[in-house]
Amino acid sequence: MAAPDALIAAFIPASAIVAILFAVFLWKRVAAIQMTGGRVLSSQNGREYLLEEEQRGGEEEIVAKAADIQKSISEGAQSFLATEYYYLGIFMVIMSVVICSLLSIVTPEEGRTSSDELRNGIFSTIAFLLGGATSILSGYLGMQIATYANARTAVEARKGIAPAFMCAFRSGAVMGFLLSGFGLLNLFLAITIFAKFFGDDWKGLFEAITGYGLGGSSIALFGRVAGGIYTKAADVGADLVGKVEKDIPEDDPRNPAVIADNVGDNVGDIAGMGADLFGSFAESTCAALVISAVSSLGKEHDYAGMMFPLLISATGIFVCLVTTFLATDLKPAKVIAEIEHTLKMQLIISTLLMTPVALGVSLWSLPPEFTLSVPSSSPDKPFDEKIVKSWYMFVCISTGLWGGLLVGLQTEYFTSNRYKPVQDVADACRTGAATDIIFGLALGYKSCIIPTIVIGVAIYVGTSLAGMFGIACCALGMLSTLATGLAIDAYGPISDNAGGIAEMAGMGEDIRERTDALDAAGNTTAAIGKGFAIGSAALVSLALFGAYVTRAKIDMIHSSILDPRVFAGLLLGAMLPYWFSAMTMKSVGKAALAMVHEVRRQFNTIAGLMEGTARPDYKRCVAISTQAAISEMVAPGALVIFTPVVVGSLFGTQCLAGVLAGSLVSGVQLAVSMSNTGGAWDNAKKYIEAGATEHARELGGKGSDCHKAAVIGDTVGDPLKDTSGPSLNILIKLMAVESLVFAPFFYNCAHGQGLIFAFFGIA
Amino acid sequence: MAAPDALIAAFIPASAIVAILFAVFLWKRVAAIQMTGGRVLSSQNGREYLLEEEQRGGEEEIVAKAADIQKSISEGAQSFLATEYYYLGIFMVIMSVVICSLLSIVTPEEGRTSSDELRNGIFSTIAFLLGGATSILSGYLGMQIATYANARTAVEARKGIAPAFMCAFRSGAVMGFLLSGFGLLNLFLAITIFAKFFGDDWKGLFEAITGYGLGGSSIALFGRVAGGIYTKAADVGADLVGKVEKDIPEDDPRNPAVIADNVGDNVGDIAGMGADLFGSFAESTCAALVISAVSSLGKEHDYAGMMFPLLISATGIFVCLVTTFLATDLKPAKVIAEIEHTLKMQLIISTLLMTPVALGVSLWSLPPEFTLSVPSSSPDKPFDEKIVKSWYMFVCISTGLWGGLLVGLQTEYFTSNRYKPVQDVADACRTGAATDIIFGLALGYKSCIIPTIVIGVAIYVGTSLAGMFGIACCALGMLSTLATGLAIDAYGPISDNAGGIAEMAGMGEDIRERTDALDAAGNTTAAIGKGFAIGSAALVSLALFGAYVTRAKIDMIHSSILDPRVFAGLLLGAMLPYWFSAMTMKSVGKAALAMVHEVRRQFNTIAGLMEGTARPDYKRCVAISTQAAISEMVAPGALVIFTPVVVGSLFGTQCLAGVLAGSLVSGVQLAVSMSNTGGAWDNAKKYIEAGATEHARELGGKGSDCHKAAVIGDTVGDPLKDTSGPSLNILIKLMAVESLVFAPFFYNCAHGQGLIFAFFGIA
Repeated sequence: MAAPDALIAAFIPASAIVAILFAVFLWKRVAAIQMTGGRVLSSQNGREYLLEEEQRGGEEEIVAKAADIQKSISEGAQSFLATEYYYLGIFMVIMSVVICSLLSIVTPEEGRTSSDELRNGIFSTIAFLLGGATSILSGYLGMQIATYANARTAVEARKGIAPAFMCAFRSGAVMGFLLSGFGLLNLFLAITIFAKFFGDDWKGLFEAITGYGLGGSSIALFGRVAGGIYTKAADVGADLVGKVEKDIPEDDPRNPAVIADNVGDNVGDIAGMGADLFGSFAESTCAALVISAVSSLGKEHDYAGMMFPLLISATGIFVCLVTTFLATDLKPAKVIAEIEHTLKMQLIISTLLMTPVALGVSLWSLPPEFTLSVPSSSPDKPFDEKIVKSWYMFVCISTGLWGGLLVGLQTEYFTSNRYKPVQDVADACRTGAATDIIFGLALGYKSCIIPTIVIGVAIYVGTSLAGMFGIACCALGMLSTLATGLAIDAYGPISDNAGGIAEMAGMGEDIRERTDALDAAGNTTAAIGKGFAIGSAALVSLALFGAYVTRAKIDMIHSSILDPRVFAGLLLGAMLPYWFSAMTMKSVGKAALAMVHEVRRQFNTIAGLMEGTARPDYKRCVAISTQAAISEMVAPGALVIFTPVVVGSLFGTQCLAGVLAGSLVSGVQLAVSMSNTGGAWDNAKKYIEAGATEHARELGGKGSDCHKAAVIGDTVGDPLKDTSGPSLNILIKLMAVESLVFAPFFYNCAHGQGLIFAFFGIA
Repeated sequence: MAAPDALIAAFIPASAIVAILFAVFLWKRVAAIQMTGGRVLSSQNGREYLLEEEQRGGEEEIVAKAADIQKSISEGAQSFLATEYYYLGIFMVIMSVVICSLLSIVTPEEGRTSSDELRNGIFSTIAFLLGGATSILSGYLGMQIATYANARTAVEARKGIAPAFMCAFRSGAVMGFLLSGFGLLNLFLAITIFAKFFGDDWKGLFEAITGYGLGGSSIALFGRVAGGIYTKAADVGADLVGKVEKDIPEDDPRNPAVIADNVGDNVGDIAGMGADLFGSFAESTCAALVISAVSSLGKEHDYAGMMFPLLISATGIFVCLVTTFLATDLKPAKVIAEIEHTLKMQLIISTLLMTPVALGVSLWSLPPEFTLSVPSSSPDKPFDEKIVKSWYMFVCISTGLWGGLLVGLQTEYFTSNRYKPVQDVADACRTGAATDIIFGLALGYKSCIIPTIVIGVAIYVGTSLAGMFGIACCALGMLSTLATGLAIDAYGPISDNAGGIAEMAGMGEDIRERTDALDAAGNTTAAIGKGFAIGSAALVSLALFGAYVTRAKIDMIHSSILDPRVFAGLLLGAMLPYWFSAMTMKSVGKAALAMVHEVRRQFNTIAGLMEGTARPDYKRCVAISTQAAISEMVAPGALVIFTPVVVGSLFGTQCLAGVLAGSLVSGVQLAVSMSNTGGAWDNAKKYIEAGATEHARELGGKGSDCHKAAVIGDTVGDPLKDTSGPSLNILIKLMAVESLVFAPFFYNCAHGQGLIFAFFGIA
């Protein structure tokens, strides 16, 4: 077995480096688009002069203006991230002290010494810091790439759909590959280095490694919440005054909040989302590792078998690489109608290619049969041995992979304006904003059906074949084509911002139409990305939950759903996503109100602003969004971070198990419905604006009553789809991984009965 | 023990009859308000001539007009209920055949014969029919009383706040007492008569009696859904054209949908809500009975102990009777500011009075100690014996009682426009409908926190003290003051309709202001009523769920939340409230669109309609609502009715247990948030309209942009608070009681493993 082990130990970092190199290669191609002067532009091949002669005259000026705007956006984003990361740094220091001390003071059980616990505490903390740092890096790089790509996409849109699409998609792919590469590489290095200190104690090693997931998800939570509040405060505030009161177009440079809005797209949708999906990747891998560490793979020190989760991600990189070439070079979208199709094909092709690869990896790296410990139903022993065949794991990976595709495709159906659901919502605008909102909410609720069934089937298949390891592998399967998923997801906000820059730089109506078409497809892919994120989050959380139950030594026999502690926990857990959403939505609303007042003030006090002769004070709006995002991220973040610790230590591990399960089953529904409702409203508005069909034209186009109603729906949807909804995945995952990391501490609190119950003697 | 038994057997029906007689007495007092001519009016004492001299001149005409409108509303409501009950009759016949056959074909277990199963099938069916019939009767009577009282309240409003309040409140109380009386009486009679056939088999007797709950809830479901669609289709349709497009007041007689809207208030909010709370009462009593039948109370044939649940309801009637006198005679609301206070005092006083009564009943009817069978955690025996003291049950009843009050008071805080939350929502209207909606949704989400904690505590207390019997008693405690709860709940729509009649009869601005004030308090009490309904529904469902687990012989040891069947069920169950809400909201939306087209058509084609010289065709609007309600109630009804049967028979009893728990924990949140969001939007609108405070006046009053935004919020809230939200309680309860009734059949399907799993041999 020596040769394959060495091969694997080389293959995993090698594939991560390939991903990073490929990202650099793509970046070079994006960077080839010059932003100064028209010289380079006109020397390129395939140039289509779509602008009128007189427009072309101002080309240099327009490009220079775009470069200028890009600079403002980039500066705004950097300064926000710097502020955010400063506070996150403080949080990480405090949290490190908490993790290290709580885990180190645990009374060692039989067979373990105090120094074992201390080692666990220290290395969990190091893993936590590493995960957090990787998450910050992912978010930062994503933001850098996106701001770099926005203006270039706008400039490329002047040549036609194909170059603009390629630019946006390549930039998205840069982010996808960088993130997959760094995530995998850092995790692999951590495992390799930690192994020197843990020796043969693989169980301890991989338990400590779960800190990596906790770090990734903590940062992701704050990133998503703060970014979401930032972007939507600016967006809602800009729209309410600009579009509704002043009747000026979206992204009009006269609107003082317009730069903040565009900064928001980068820090919220790109940096936040990157951190989120990195968290999912880290956690699903950690969950699979910690479970398999106590299987025969871990006990017999089967390196190849243990590395199975990382190998899936590593081979996934190559699958995504091939798939990406297809969209960027072999068959890019050339006309508007092809954009959505091209993006959808990315999902389908990567899934198709990944399937045989997963079979190969399963048969090659795993032994034909191995045994897993699954919670026993007999009171005599805590665990049963379950025999698992290597092809079972292929089935699990495929279930996740194809389940993810199914969720993606149904999300497309519910949020793309090419299908009936969104068209119905647009049609409901005829009778005003109220019916628009009623139909949109109903659409979101309905869109929960398929994802729930898919996750339910994955849970059943995964658990039946390989217990919680099966579920973790379902999640890994869903995330195996992460680079592609991230690419199409990041594509959305990049196109959105390109549209903003086109508008601000005065590139003309036809250019704006192209970026709008790119963006409409982007809304759908963003919803698809959120579908993946929530589907994988549900599976990841369940796997982490399973690992938690084992690590917290929960007595499954006394944990039926009828146990009052479990059921009360279930109910409270189901409430948490609502509480959390109430906080984040209210924060967006409050911040948006502040933004509205500032924008109104500027319109009222700056002479010549409306006429375009004076320049608005963009910086004050940027400051309002920054201030709101930073101060408002604390309360929801604290709710998520403190709940597991408080419940687990005071009310016991069983109650916490209920809370985790409850928040999972309730949060999934709320997150899916929020994302899809918001996406549908946004695209219903775009459908009316674009007027591409007979039906759409009937609704009256821009400025009509229908359109005004649709704008209200879109505005309501903003915090749902970009703040509250996507943060809920992280809520679910973070509580699960945190419970897993702190499980030994909870068990230490009155043997998992909880200090309060123990105090009153009613456990 | 002979004497108390006879006493109890006499006391329960006697108190039911007292309730009915008291209702008749109150009705007489409402009926004393004459609707023809002003003669009787002016001969009454305490008459305040608040109308101007010239207005008083037209008094006979106005009263005659009100009587005429009342007749139209009453006819519309009767014709709708006749149609609805026709279809429900067909449903009940089919369902009876299903119940009777599925339960009768069950292979008898050891110790039981085929004739035992046949008897269970037949008597369950009879109980089902009786429950359904009582529910229909409750709804019908409620509607009759309400339509009778509407016009009288409007006429009384001309004399002042106090007489109008008294009329509306008394009419609500008529409904409350009639319903409590009939519900208790019929259940008692059923038990007494069934006992002749079951002899000493009390377990079998009370299992058959659960059919009563199933019947009550099935009818309630259709009543709520159909009534909710009816009322909101009309309301939304009327508002969208009348208030938004034509700028005519709410309830303007020129609006063709106005009669349908007022009919809707009666059939939806009154008949539907009456059926809903009757269902909760029936089910919580049935749950308590079926659980105590297998306790030592049932085994030792302790009649007094067994009748404890009925005694709580019986004594509750007297408590409510005293409380009601306080509001109607001793201290009625005399000025607008007192209305909410008076209604709130009803809740507080009834809770205060009920507490010692519950202690008395517990100590008097229950033996000082008895034993309950609770699911055992040991694999050797299915049940453990748990010793319960009589005062434990007092604690359970009180927990429910005070928990209900707490939920009620927090609901008031979140939905009354005297407090900050609603004022914040109103304030958000400054920046338009979008922020109104964002703040309203956030408010609803936030309002889930306290009810969830209350229910969670009740579950913990109830289960710790007395297993599932404790939970059932918590629910009974919450419902013990049902008559008062119903009275204040029914008060709302009666005032709402009175306002409509005042408007239509042209009673003038000052009268309308009074009815609006009555109605604003009514919105809050309606939300409080919904809070009680959902709180009790959650507890009832859990108790039924516990009884189901026992009756379906679910192996608790293999039913931890990590069991894949349970967890997949949990996830699917959590999705059901969303699916159901999607259906009902879409139905309201569709029906409202149809209504809008008809109203627009009439305004466009009937000459002189806008000028008030021509009469609109009210009947066509009534027909549209009726048609929509009847056809749209089928799909959501089928979803709820079929889910337990399909899941239980195909996927097994454990998966069904997961589904029940999942739908409970997720449905509670959705129902609470929907009710409170809707109530808050409605009252935010009323707050702006009334302009009672400095802040409210700043927002601009009727016709301002703020008000228009608030109207949109109100319209969105309509289906949330009156269709989807309240139907969710019934979804939860109905699935639980249906599972309990069909439990033997499910167990018969491959020993509860489910036919599909059994077929594939993967159970």
